[in-house]
Amino acid sequence: MDDRDYVHGYSAREAERLADQAAILRPLLHEGVRFPGGGVVFEPGCGTGQQTAALLAAHPDIRVLATDIDDGQLAEARAALGDTPRVSFRQGDVRTTDFAPGFADHAFLCFLLEHLTDPGAALAAVRRVVKPGGAVVVIEGDHGSCRFHPETAAARRVWESLPGCQRALGGDPDIGRRLYGALNAAGFSSIAVEPRMVYADAGHPELRAGFVHRIIVPMVEGARDRVLAEGGLSPEDWERGLRDLRATGQGVEGAFCYTFFRAVATA
Amino acid sequence: MDDRDYVHGYSAREAERLADQAAILRPLLHEGVRFPGGGVVFEPGCGTGQQTAALLAAHPDIRVLATDIDDGQLAEARAALGDTPRVSFRQGDVRTTDFAPGFADHAFLCFLLEHLTDPGAALAAVRRVVKPGGAVVVIEGDHGSCRFHPETAAARRVWESLPGCQRALGGDPDIGRRLYGALNAAGFSSIAVEPRMVYADAGHPELRAGFVHRIIVPMVEGARDRVLAEGGLSPEDWERGLRDLRATGQGVEGAFCYTFFRAVATA
Repeated sequence: MDDRDYVHGYSAREAERLADQAAILRPLLHEGVRFPGGGVVFEPGCGTGQQTAALLAAHPDIRVLATDIDDGQLAEARAALGDTPRVSFRQGDVRTTDFAPGFADHAFLCFLLEHLTDPGAALAAVRRVVKPGGAVVVIEGDHGSCRFHPETAAARRVWESLPGCQRALGGDPDIGRRLYGALNAAGFSSIAVEPRMVYADAGHPELRAGFVHRIIVPMVEGARDRVLAEGGLSPEDWERGLRDLRATGQGVEGAFCYTFFRAVATA
Repeated sequence: MDDRDYVHGYSAREAERLADQAAILRPLLHEGVRFPGGGVVFEPGCGTGQQTAALLAAHPDIRVLATDIDDGQLAEARAALGDTPRVSFRQGDVRTTDFAPGFADHAFLCFLLEHLTDPGAALAAVRRVVKPGGAVVVIEGDHGSCRFHPETAAARRVWESLPGCQRALGGDPDIGRRLYGALNAAGFSSIAVEPRMVYADAGHPELRAGFVHRIIVPMVEGARDRVLAEGGLSPEDWERGLRDLRATGQGVEGAFCYTFFRAVATA
């Protein structure tokens, strides 16, 4: 198992999806985040830098120390953020990071733990790097929370193939609901976990279209080759399910629900 | 099919569960509800009167016209609310109600539509009884939104047996996410649906214990005889799953998520 074998892949289309996702979800995920006193925020798993940009924009008093295991994504992040003294990018695996203990004032992790075979090791490393008393913000999804209407069996099977792939790669697509326990086991204190739910029906057509057509459907499509190669679904099942999944983002009846979880804890 | 064949049954233990449920969920379900100008609020499916009591307490300027199909539940509701000119109870099926068109100023429905084979007929009747421009508040659960940790296969099977029974009786346990479309089809306007989520982990031990041990587990237990009679689960499977379901309400790791949906619309 190589943790670089990442369920979402590293394609240009995926990079576009990540940018859409960050823009659509920024208020939901970032509203109310605080890093008291500012300083250095450690951001492991920064990927293409979408959340890094959101952090810098929202918190004028921070610098970000951003790392990722993947050189290609880091190069995109560097290109996207330009030359600024407010962010340093480093290649590396969070679990073996050798930044000095207490080097960072705070930490921010978004959509990282779900992909790791050992999220506890990553949280332990974050706790070493952040000085005692620093704020740690962890945002994860919970694919089990994803429900929609009309919820056909075909759409459900296609959707479920994505968490299935992620589990096969050693990740936990349902990690959102486990954050309290994981942070507690890693020794953090003052843990507070809050659900951040996307619910979009015909009364919110823009949010619904953005979430279904520019986040969910492209994310599922990114797993197509892997799912078909594993033989779980035929190409016809795939197309039918994807068509039904798209239908949840339109019409008077279409509705989509997904819950992210945001944890705040003290190092 | 008789709509009196109700998935939750009419036992004394179920009456106790309904009282617990109403007390625990009252802030979540009732906060922010408005009936502009007060007047008569039509409440079909009032059951044992738990929501009726919450309505009367929260809105001093309303009277409630409460109906239910079941005489036994109505008797309990009458006994619970005592003699007050602020509420009138009547036995009847909402779909065939003959109150004069426009007789009520507003309406409130809670956990009713999920049990009906034809929720559209009930909404059409509500629209006739409420005068044009009145506010209609509809609250329903969505059993598909129920997720927990640890989520064992045994716990999942026991939980799923409850919506399974409800579907077999002709109801829709996932109706929450369908409210926008259902209200639209019944001719209501200015529809706004809001998810009202219960998320409880070890950081909220009282809410977690109340929700898991006094609402969810008793609700599932109420379907035991029906599930075992239908042969879907053995008594051993049942006990194992129920034990695992209880475990989600305790310990550092236990977490429980459930989403209610509250719709507000104009008649």
